[in-house]
Amino acid sequence: MMINIAFLGYGTVGKGAYKIINEKKSEIEYFVGDEVTVKKILRRNINVTTEDGRAIFTSDFNEIVDDEDISLIVEMTGDLKSSYEYIKRALENKKHVISANKAVVSEYFDEFNKLADKNGVSFLYEAAVGGSIPIITPLKSQAIINKINRVRGILNGTSNYLLSRMYNEGKSYSEVLKDAQELGYAESDPYDDVEGVDTLRKLTILSTIAFNGIVKNEDILRFGISKINDTDIEYLKSKNLKVKLMAESVLESEAFSAVVEPVVLDERDNLYNIEGADNSVEIFGENYSSLVFKGEGAGSLPTGNAIVSDVIDVLRGAALKVKTDESLICSNKIDAKYYVRVPKDFSLDVEVESEEVIGEYKVFKTENVSRETLIEKLNCEDYFMARYEI
Amino acid sequence: MMINIAFLGYGTVGKGAYKIINEKKSEIEYFVGDEVTVKKILRRNINVTTEDGRAIFTSDFNEIVDDEDISLIVEMTGDLKSSYEYIKRALENKKHVISANKAVVSEYFDEFNKLADKNGVSFLYEAAVGGSIPIITPLKSQAIINKINRVRGILNGTSNYLLSRMYNEGKSYSEVLKDAQELGYAESDPYDDVEGVDTLRKLTILSTIAFNGIVKNEDILRFGISKINDTDIEYLKSKNLKVKLMAESVLESEAFSAVVEPVVLDERDNLYNIEGADNSVEIFGENYSSLVFKGEGAGSLPTGNAIVSDVIDVLRGAALKVKTDESLICSNKIDAKYYVRVPKDFSLDVEVESEEVIGEYKVFKTENVSRETLIEKLNCEDYFMARYEI
Repeated sequence: MMINIAFLGYGTVGKGAYKIINEKKSEIEYFVGDEVTVKKILRRNINVTTEDGRAIFTSDFNEIVDDEDISLIVEMTGDLKSSYEYIKRALENKKHVISANKAVVSEYFDEFNKLADKNGVSFLYEAAVGGSIPIITPLKSQAIINKINRVRGILNGTSNYLLSRMYNEGKSYSEVLKDAQELGYAESDPYDDVEGVDTLRKLTILSTIAFNGIVKNEDILRFGISKINDTDIEYLKSKNLKVKLMAESVLESEAFSAVVEPVVLDERDNLYNIEGADNSVEIFGENYSSLVFKGEGAGSLPTGNAIVSDVIDVLRGAALKVKTDESLICSNKIDAKYYVRVPKDFSLDVEVESEEVIGEYKVFKTENVSRETLIEKLNCEDYFMARYEI
Repeated sequence: MMINIAFLGYGTVGKGAYKIINEKKSEIEYFVGDEVTVKKILRRNINVTTEDGRAIFTSDFNEIVDDEDISLIVEMTGDLKSSYEYIKRALENKKHVISANKAVVSEYFDEFNKLADKNGVSFLYEAAVGGSIPIITPLKSQAIINKINRVRGILNGTSNYLLSRMYNEGKSYSEVLKDAQELGYAESDPYDDVEGVDTLRKLTILSTIAFNGIVKNEDILRFGISKINDTDIEYLKSKNLKVKLMAESVLESEAFSAVVEPVVLDERDNLYNIEGADNSVEIFGENYSSLVFKGEGAGSLPTGNAIVSDVIDVLRGAALKVKTDESLICSNKIDAKYYVRVPKDFSLDVEVESEEVIGEYKVFKTENVSRETLIEKLNCEDYFMARYEI
């Protein structure tokens, strides 16, 4: 019997996944036990062929979702609204769905999982978090047998790349951003990457799986890296510290706190050396201190590889579901020491452990402070903050 | 229906696995779809009870292997000979087998896999490599869809612990060994750990899966850490370098080279910061530069956790097989720069990049040299060597 797959989108990730499925066809078929082929690809411009010369493009989603021979749809568009409709209709038509789209997966996680369950099909999304890193599948398994009480990660290659270059080359934020945009490492509108929106969506997915409970995008606190300047980098570098945009959620007595914000790390930290566009995830549980995963966070073959690992799991009937317990409470009580940089004449009314004037600025290390209180008191324009995770 | 499991052995790992199965009973049963219980445990001294007071011990393996209600046997003994018989008979009696025993898994990998296949049951061994790290399952999946051409790792917690303490505390090899033995981190006979035998067995398993071909224990070259002394540590530390006992295999045009030996790493290396009893594995393939996994390498709950992840995969029918291609050739051609320390009056006839006299010793960094040639020429008693991996 032939298993027919459809792709929605044929950009960087789609091309990578297509290439891997083609090149590893016989290996995949050995483990799946059937012939496997990509039958149709949804794309706006259909006057193209695949790398191996096949004209299998359509611009009409109905041609895919109504095709009874297609049992698996791989969604790799970027758009939130149309992808929601695609995935919903695919699951309702009893087709397995794999998505690389963190926006739609994080927003409709619970709905899609229930819909897949109801229709007896699988819904997987390994490629939506951490690029090449196999994190979703192991995390699901770990969350069954271990009490996972904390998950954190560097999940956005663009922002990590910018911070690495500032740190290593002594260039300003605007210089490295401009450079990254020219090199294609950053979008012309970098908001979602540098303000932590992309990272937040991935944390929503990781936290939901880790804690076996529904975590929503709007539950997660967020502060990005766009306010960082040379003073911050120089000061931290002089102390052999690094700043990273960290996603982190912690579960304490059935209430979780989840935040995406810059953190200050020292060299003993497992994520201190995550540089450039790499991603890393660390999970903490009762059965061990932590597990760390690291790999490329994006790219055609790395992300395509994650897609195809889901394809195999779906087709051999091994996809793991997520059991969500509705009782999970979002507390978002975060008390920590913070690095804060403000104009030197700004008066910050929090207890501090240390304080230093550098040129036009003052930098602090606060005592343990409520994050909420700190932000209230930071009522100035030109500031930067980062949580000490040391 | 009740799924009955039997344990062979109830030591550190067995107790950890038992505890997790008990505590996570309802979660496991939700995903497996059946009730799950540990029915019998094989143990020499049977006058004991489990943590929760059950007298389910037997000293007769026949009582387990002939019990038609038992569908899964978890082997956690240390013995090679009896465990071989146990696993063989269990598979022949159509029982799934999970083993934490790297000695027996590495020695009989191919036989057990074929026997499991023939009898329509699963054979899994996540806990045999890397303790808590989920590496076997992801590696199997990666080896289907990616051409894995290199795998390396720090796989023995004891030797890594010894090296870390020598490096961090400036103590001698014999001092830290004695201390580790008193603390229970090292066996009274530390041979298998410090001479790389344990690491080698794990590399056999990783390489076989990674390369989809049969790698045997006797294929792998090996040199341990017992010859290291203070001069080696001090010299490398002065250059901000570390030495680690590394397992590494590389595949080039269908021939592989595999070696367990000390390597010299600099701070940019992904495994430079693996300290103490931690383990780490790095895999390299065509679809990405590398994936890194890190976690605790041993312990009751960490290793028990790996056992239970296999239990779930077996019971929900998701266990992945390994496809081995008999044509894999062992070339073991290793050319590299080596760190070598010899008595200062010893004349080493290889081309060197640098040379330094330190007290009673000479230390070299060789030019690229054949490992085989180097060892031939190292015909003295008091020497140490480590491959530069920089």
